[in-house]
Amino acid sequence: MTKNIFENSPKPTDKEFFEELFSKEGVKIERIVSYGHTTPELEWYDQRRDEWVIVLKGEAVISFLNEDDVRLQAGDYINIPAHKKHRVSWTKPEEETVWLAVHC
Amino acid sequence: MTKNIFENSPKPTDKEFFEELFSKEGVKIERIVSYGHTTPELEWYDQRRDEWVIVLKGEAVISFLNEDDVRLQAGDYINIPAHKKHRVSWTKPEEETVWLAVHC
Repeated sequence: MTKNIFENSPKPTDKEFFEELFSKEGVKIERIVSYGHTTPELEWYDQRRDEWVIVLKGEAVISFLNEDDVRLQAGDYINIPAHKKHRVSWTKPEEETVWLAVHC
Repeated sequence: MTKNIFENSPKPTDKEFFEELFSKEGVKIERIVSYGHTTPELEWYDQRRDEWVIVLKGEAVISFLNEDDVRLQAGDYINIPAHKKHRVSWTKPEEETVWLAVHC
């Protein structure tokens, strides 16, 4: 009935891991696991929904177009408004970074 | 620009702490901090929206009407469908329990 967000992480591969935990009418809750992954150079996310995101383990840097980078450590959260261009420019290479994202 | 869900917790009081972190058209993301708090005896939550909830620190037990209790430790998450009667029957008394809830 319950699951644990830190368990059953996939083995490190060359791709970031995305898992839908819950979804409903315009809302999606997602687990993301990164192992040093970043958004490919010169690519920007430009999402149609807001993304409220928290890092629960590990560490990451999100870059925004024409703005300062934002570093996220365990427990840090941020809202990325729809269509705000951003990319993940760094995640901790030696361990997994676990994100919880709410797209709405 | 970022905040940390484990920081700036209120001092323990006789009331549970609720803080809205983000909200938008039918979605509310909330931080809850419990210090041994429970739902008053014989009271049941009967909510009009689903509540997807994860314990990020501490430990808790949720009781459901006519069902087994569910114990949640750090990282454990569960979805409580709208109108499913439930109560928080126990939270760890010696330390804070930090919950992240998405109501949608």
